[in-house]
Amino acid sequence: MAHKHGHGKERIQFANTEDKQEFSKYPTKAGRRSLSRSISQSSTDSYSSAASYTDSSDDETSPRDKAQVNTQGSSDFCVKNIKQAEFGRREIEIAEQDMSALISLRKRAQGEKPLAGAKIVGCTHITAQTAVLIETLVALGAQCRWTACNIYSTQNEVAAALAETGVPVFAWKGESEDDFWWCIDRCVNREGWQANMILDDGGDLTHWVYKKYPSVFKKVRGIVEESVTGVHRLYQLSKAGKLCVPAMNVNDSVTKQKFDNLYCCRESILDGLKRTTDIMFGGKQVVVCGYGEVGKGCCTALKALGAIVCITEIDPICALQACMDGFRVVKLSEVIRQMDVVITCTGNKNVVTREQLDRMKNGCIVCNMGHSNTEIDVASLRSPELTWERVRSQVDHIIWPDGKRVVLLAEGRLLNLSCSTVPTFVLSITATTQALAVIELFNAPEGRYKQDVYLLPKKMDEYVASLHLPNFDAHLTELSDEQAKYMGLNKNGPFKPNYYRY
Amino acid sequence: MAHKHGHGKERIQFANTEDKQEFSKYPTKAGRRSLSRSISQSSTDSYSSAASYTDSSDDETSPRDKAQVNTQGSSDFCVKNIKQAEFGRREIEIAEQDMSALISLRKRAQGEKPLAGAKIVGCTHITAQTAVLIETLVALGAQCRWTACNIYSTQNEVAAALAETGVPVFAWKGESEDDFWWCIDRCVNREGWQANMILDDGGDLTHWVYKKYPSVFKKVRGIVEESVTGVHRLYQLSKAGKLCVPAMNVNDSVTKQKFDNLYCCRESILDGLKRTTDIMFGGKQVVVCGYGEVGKGCCTALKALGAIVCITEIDPICALQACMDGFRVVKLSEVIRQMDVVITCTGNKNVVTREQLDRMKNGCIVCNMGHSNTEIDVASLRSPELTWERVRSQVDHIIWPDGKRVVLLAEGRLLNLSCSTVPTFVLSITATTQALAVIELFNAPEGRYKQDVYLLPKKMDEYVASLHLPNFDAHLTELSDEQAKYMGLNKNGPFKPNYYRY
Amino acid sequence: MAHKHGHGKERIQFANTEDKQEFSKYPTKAGRRSLSRSISQSSTDSYSSAASYTDSSDDETSPRDKAQVNTQGSSDFCVKNIKQAEFGRREIEIAEQDMSALISLRKRAQGEKPLAGAKIVGCTHITAQTAVLIETLVALGAQCRWTACNIYSTQNEVAAALAETGVPVFAWKGESEDDFWWCIDRCVNREGWQANMILDDGGDLTHWVYKKYPSVFKKVRGIVEESVTGVHRLYQLSKAGKLCVPAMNVNDSVTKQKFDNLYCCRESILDGLKRTTDIMFGGKQVVVCGYGEVGKGCCTALKALGAIVCITEIDPICALQACMDGFRVVKLSEVIRQMDVVITCTGNKNVVTREQLDRMKNGCIVCNMGHSNTEIDVASLRSPELTWERVRSQVDHIIWPDGKRVVLLAEGRLLNLSCSTVPTFVLSITATTQALAVIELFNAPEGRYKQDVYLLPKKMDEYVASLHLPNFDAHLTELSDEQAKYMGLNKNGPFKPNYYRY
Amino acid sequence: MAHKHGHGKERIQFANTEDKQEFSKYPTKAGRRSLSRSISQSSTDSYSSAASYTDSSDDETSPRDKAQVNTQGSSDFCVKNIKQAEFGRREIEIAEQDMSALISLRKRAQGEKPLAGAKIVGCTHITAQTAVLIETLVALGAQCRWTACNIYSTQNEVAAALAETGVPVFAWKGESEDDFWWCIDRCVNREGWQANMILDDGGDLTHWVYKKYPSVFKKVRGIVEESVTGVHRLYQLSKAGKLCVPAMNVNDSVTKQKFDNLYCCRESILDGLKRTTDIMFGGKQVVVCGYGEVGKGCCTALKALGAIVCITEIDPICALQACMDGFRVVKLSEVIRQMDVVITCTGNKNVVTREQLDRMKNGCIVCNMGHSNTEIDVASLRSPELTWERVRSQVDHIIWPDGKRVVLLAEGRLLNLSCSTVPTFVLSITATTQALAVIELFNAPEGRYKQDVYLLPKKMDEYVASLHLPNFDAHLTELSDEQAKYMGLNKNGPFKPNYYRY
Repeated sequence: MAHKHGHGKERIQFANTEDKQEFSKYPTKAGRRSLSRSISQSSTDSYSSAASYTDSSDDETSPRDKAQVNTQGSSDFCVKNIKQAEFGRREIEIAEQDMSALISLRKRAQGEKPLAGAKIVGCTHITAQTAVLIETLVALGAQCRWTACNIYSTQNEVAAALAETGVPVFAWKGESEDDFWWCIDRCVNREGWQANMILDDGGDLTHWVYKKYPSVFKKVRGIVEESVTGVHRLYQLSKAGKLCVPAMNVNDSVTKQKFDNLYCCRESILDGLKRTTDIMFGGKQVVVCGYGEVGKGCCTALKALGAIVCITEIDPICALQACMDGFRVVKLSEVIRQMDVVITCTGNKNVVTREQLDRMKNGCIVCNMGHSNTEIDVASLRSPELTWERVRSQVDHIIWPDGKRVVLLAEGRLLNLSCSTVPTFVLSITATTQALAVIELFNAPEGRYKQDVYLLPKKMDEYVASLHLPNFDAHLTELSDEQAKYMGLNKNGPFKPNYYRY
Repeated sequence: MAHKHGHGKERIQFANTEDKQEFSKYPTKAGRRSLSRSISQSSTDSYSSAASYTDSSDDETSPRDKAQVNTQGSSDFCVKNIKQAEFGRREIEIAEQDMSALISLRKRAQGEKPLAGAKIVGCTHITAQTAVLIETLVALGAQCRWTACNIYSTQNEVAAALAETGVPVFAWKGESEDDFWWCIDRCVNREGWQANMILDDGGDLTHWVYKKYPSVFKKVRGIVEESVTGVHRLYQLSKAGKLCVPAMNVNDSVTKQKFDNLYCCRESILDGLKRTTDIMFGGKQVVVCGYGEVGKGCCTALKALGAIVCITEIDPICALQACMDGFRVVKLSEVIRQMDVVITCTGNKNVVTREQLDRMKNGCIVCNMGHSNTEIDVASLRSPELTWERVRSQVDHIIWPDGKRVVLLAEGRLLNLSCSTVPTFVLSITATTQALAVIELFNAPEGRYKQDVYLLPKKMDEYVASLHLPNFDAHLTELSDEQAKYMGLNKNGPFKPNYYRY
Repeated sequence: MAHKHGHGKERIQFANTEDKQEFSKYPTKAGRRSLSRSISQSSTDSYSSAASYTDSSDDETSPRDKAQVNTQGSSDFCVKNIKQAEFGRREIEIAEQDMSALISLRKRAQGEKPLAGAKIVGCTHITAQTAVLIETLVALGAQCRWTACNIYSTQNEVAAALAETGVPVFAWKGESEDDFWWCIDRCVNREGWQANMILDDGGDLTHWVYKKYPSVFKKVRGIVEESVTGVHRLYQLSKAGKLCVPAMNVNDSVTKQKFDNLYCCRESILDGLKRTTDIMFGGKQVVVCGYGEVGKGCCTALKALGAIVCITEIDPICALQACMDGFRVVKLSEVIRQMDVVITCTGNKNVVTREQLDRMKNGCIVCNMGHSNTEIDVASLRSPELTWERVRSQVDHIIWPDGKRVVLLAEGRLLNLSCSTVPTFVLSITATTQALAVIELFNAPEGRYKQDVYLLPKKMDEYVASLHLPNFDAHLTELSDEQAKYMGLNKNGPFKPNYYRY
Repeated sequence: MAHKHGHGKERIQFANTEDKQEFSKYPTKAGRRSLSRSISQSSTDSYSSAASYTDSSDDETSPRDKAQVNTQGSSDFCVKNIKQAEFGRREIEIAEQDMSALISLRKRAQGEKPLAGAKIVGCTHITAQTAVLIETLVALGAQCRWTACNIYSTQNEVAAALAETGVPVFAWKGESEDDFWWCIDRCVNREGWQANMILDDGGDLTHWVYKKYPSVFKKVRGIVEESVTGVHRLYQLSKAGKLCVPAMNVNDSVTKQKFDNLYCCRESILDGLKRTTDIMFGGKQVVVCGYGEVGKGCCTALKALGAIVCITEIDPICALQACMDGFRVVKLSEVIRQMDVVITCTGNKNVVTREQLDRMKNGCIVCNMGHSNTEIDVASLRSPELTWERVRSQVDHIIWPDGKRVVLLAEGRLLNLSCSTVPTFVLSITATTQALAVIELFNAPEGRYKQDVYLLPKKMDEYVASLHLPNFDAHLTELSDEQAKYMGLNKNGPFKPNYYRY
């Protein structure tokens, strides 16, 4: 997709989907999964999306053609409708309730203003949750300018609320490709103001600064990148010797990977299936393809609700884990005829083939929780002998000549992205990690970080976790001096070796 | 609510709720819970409710004032818009896929037409699922006339589809009280046609026939009643010596109670909470008030997804079960300050008091899975010092003067009724039970049933269950002659004594 | 077995098993399962059996030939060795710690001595747990004389401890059939003392009194019977019009059935399999025959530890429950080749046939948790082409000519009886129920109980449960007056209708 | 303990425990846990230990003073009683049934005899399971000489069986310290035979060769070490520049750590508690100290059986995992008064202090699943005001002056080591890993491994796992060429990056 790797003159082909990042040119081996999470807010048709309150009533004028001023008299922003600010503020306040880690970070660090002097350009989904992140950065002393990393995912009222309080935001739901780059440029290119930090999700902003404003890029103190794709592009830059600033890979931190994937999928698989199909889980025969973190999360939840789950795997270690966890390990073709639900979580392509779709029983539900939209060979279903019937939003019945129906969810795109919500609490973990990465890079003594891509130090991972414990009223035990000595540990951590598997 | 116990001249006070049955005058000791299920389709604002497709586009003319004719030329029906029939047909077909027990019953019994000669008046929710029931009765030889038991729950397009195929249906979504009784009367009072069976949900139809058409009533062969309220009214009639026909209490059959309550709530508690609040279950502190079947279902599901659940109980036996199942048994006041979620499942009133609401922590979610809307003292929250803020459909924030917010779902009405869906499979069990009860009463030799209220014979309960086993590809074992003799059982059942607890 | 239904002159054939009750002539339809529990202490080879401390060191003289006197100078008892009293006392004290309900009952009722005047003859297993029961009855004012209901299950040191404190006990481990009846007679036939209450487990004592001392029998105020067999015999007596005293059927009380079967088996299936085979549960394919309470308990535990469990059923309702609980319902012959473990819980005979044993894979474990030793056709394995190899106590390898081994546990007798322990807590529930039944019958106003077999009133079931809640620090909620009125309940219970299924 | 680091002249102080390795001088930060597993067979009092069959009947003559010859005429061994060989053979055969991975390895590699020419000296526990390992090495072409790594853990009959088939074994149960080193020396020092591979568990053999036979040591091709302690000593040697041969650290391989700790503890915590205390798990309040793999395993199992579990942690990441998994995170002192069971799994010292022991309630069970015997401050309980009462093997009641009893298991040593069994299947995984490590080191082309300590290549970890899949009838899926290319993977693995957390 163009705006993910667009270099101005490239021919842009919009995929017919709101889940644009999925078409990334850069599939990478590890951590692909996280990609999906980074754009979870793009789920524009989600039941709970507050955005739906306001969209339909909006006029058709492009925000670029409107003259808007916030109550402070500033017009340094471009949003759909600044008058929605109040409604957006309420959404932000609701989000704050589940993001107390960031609020707590504001309190702990506010006195010292660790980001005083930071000038951050950011490019993320613009949602209530990222608004809490942005306002945290501001509270810690930073100046921020922001733009959207996805043309569909902006909550217009949240953008308005941010603009109203003085954060220059350039984003609205339903941007064109041209709008997208225009916004990025407006975000970066401000007379008398020069960014010294980049917070990116996908790498487009980074790329734009690198290409269009090389002198700015060289003076940046650090880049914080959240997505698989963006991280991949940074590694490529680094490999090519062109990364002249330190970058922090937030995507592969423990807190993000273990919590975002395992725990989040444990809940969203149920949510996604229910909202689309009203299926009763009890007694359903389910095959989950792939027993990584995502697969583990799906299997745990479905089994807990009475489904009979088996899995497929290519990796014998994960397969052995599945055995010990009580799941039969099968080949898809062995069981496909009996299954009520087929879920892919592999990150691979053509995991469910047309031949297997042909053999499914009537009413079988097929969906994808893994990477991109390649796991199910949906293309093979677009053939003349099959009839597609859209029965609900995100739900298609594919009808075979003999009347058999297969229920395809989200056209094979990510189910939890399209048909469920991501709990604010999980987003809080990621946002806190991003905030700490910004603080770390901005304040690191010269020389600590070179022109390379870094993982967050384990101690900061632990700090992110500790900021979230009060949500659960969890009380950590402290090591005594004697115990710390016995264990050879510092009382304040880090508590585990880097290779610890959790 | 009038139409639940309306005797014509009674003053009608409409409650400000779509869940009208909840205001029944007749709380009864056992089985109250089932009440909720019987009107689950009334969930008009449910995400998945197909009804929403069509409602907004409809005109304002009352169906009573419209002249409509189906393609067969009949005008013996009254629905919102007969033209929606095709859309309704698709909804029925989707429902059929999960109601294969009824389809199977059609096949097994079709040759013999066990309901040939049956003239059934029915009064139930009119949804895709009840349509499958009605069309099954027709397939088995019955003539049916139908009306709605709830003024809000009718799926207009389904009513249209039924009317189109020749079933005289008198129902639409949003009837007035007057409409309600008009529809019932039109259903019963058809020249040249006299009902000999009643299938009721709530007892209104039964009452109307009893009061207005006593001569018809006397000649009825049997009544099948599904709801707690309706069953209660039948028992009262019987006690008063006025029940001159046999009646079947479907509400208390095993298949209905164990499956509808335990398994259905296990799923709907998660669904209801997710759709309204996007809550992450992991690590949440939850108190469930009441450890009956509904409470058991809620606790099982929440614990399975990582919530930390404790319960309250008045009955020491249920409390001891909770202990053995791993739930702490507490008094609500002991834990109320720490809870993230409070769920009532008691069937009692004022289980959550204003005092306890005052002590909840900021962000605490309160909802009701039990009977009626009395469990949470919602009335006490309508006081001037508290601000109500509707943040989403079915979600209110109650704001205390100090800023504390309590999240109240569905205004204390049934969460699963208002905010989640009921799986078709569960409805299939109930519908099959109703169909078998009709067949049994209609065909019973004279004298088998007297003028009393009966439970379905256990053997028929077992038959209902057996019709649903193919859904799970479940294979029953058959007793050998030798084994049957050893056990003192008939090879075809019943397999358990009546008092067996399952 | 003679002593189960012995009528004096009958020819006695000792089965080659310590589990004598299993050969009862009277299989009954309901509740057979409980039979097993009533003699659980007979597990003489259990690892934890304290009895093993003392047995081997004992001399060979029959207790009947010894002259023993306790420290109070009494010789009105007959036990193995009165000198073991101190060791037995410690065992009783350990048991008391988990039977606080009885201790609490002693305290609550002690002032009033509700059993003052009661003269109880008892016939139960004589173990630390029943000792706590007996001493509770004494503390409440009763005079007790006791004998054993099983010739193998007596803990000699416990019998000594009871005798030492003045309870005339007539029992030792390893009685002969003749000893058995001699002990019963000595227990009943005491000059100047006439029993007015009978507490029985199996019906032998009752039968003896009925036959040998009809004049005593007629004046008895009540009989409390715990076992399936005993209850069956009482119902037969009643049917024949010969039961001239009221009897209480403790076997079918809720607290006994639900807790003893479901929860106890949930734990003992794991314990029994581990102690005998050291099996790792994770990933094992298990088939459980029968999904009643026992089967449910087994399935829950095994699934929780990672086994892959399927079930067989004859009853479609239980089968449907299994489906909803996430277990595949199969016929045994369909899966027998793949299974690692086969467990029977049906109460039926020949559930596992020789043909199926022939088809099992090498190393398959076969055991029985159900009724008696008939479920597995063990007799068919005693054929010349098969080799039996005893590899451990209670563990036989049956070796096929091709080298295949099937691992048979406890020779097909009850696994949890033979190879695991029954938690004291569960025994406490039963013992408390027995104590309350005695109090109720002894104190009931004339006319409350006729010459019939009764179930314990639900309110007393609830009381038994409530006495056990402090073990879990569980806090019951009390109904307010308003709530009790709304529910139509008495604040002190009973809280559920009799047919409530829990 | 001397034999862990004894250099001949050192003063030896035997700890009063059979778990000698626990007193290692070398506590190391990571992986301590595994230590326990390496000597699991030392559980001499385990119910299932076959050793108990023969011990008591043995004479008192030291094996060193006996002249024994096997049926092949060889006397190059020293075991307790060569006549027990047949019984030992049966134990080995039973073990083989659960170690099919090794049998399968024999078959796959047998043609090529990959260990032809290998002369292996080994020092491990000598049990049926290690016998399967040793005989696998022999089957693959190796010559083996073996000795025991623990003076208590040898199964005498297994040693006899090995000796009978021609493996020179020097080991018996109950060696003296002097015996221990004598055996090691006899194992290494054989005229005309020089070892070229070392397989060690604890590092004693390695140390002996290094010190006493430096010329042999230099020519060794590789060392395979399983234990934490031994690995630690290798790293120290390496750090000191004295490790002149490559060594393989088997202890930290994925298959060993994830399976041995998580899954094994999930089962052994239940087994250990049941065998010692007959506790009923349902409703018990349990605190687990430490939420690493061991803690996770314990918590999962206990929760699954109805216990109410909370945890303590020092690491916020693990604490957050506990929250998401549904366990309250507390400080021990906050909950100690309410707990029924306290379990330590931290690897730290004084996690349970005397002060906390003082505050426990009557009957509280305390045990240790973690490292060594330091977690519970048992020493503090050996004070005059407290009475110790041994109620069963491995079970002490500590009695406070007020009568309160605390139930201490295994005197604070490892519960699963002392009171439960380790499933053969888990040992199979470790043994297979050892065998592959030997093959790899012996056959590696020169230069692949330097004089350093290595982890097993991930591909071999995957191979170990794949060899165990047939046990579960698990069917791996194979990547298509197209898929492998898309993923950037080799079709045969490795499938994950090294840092993958599983």
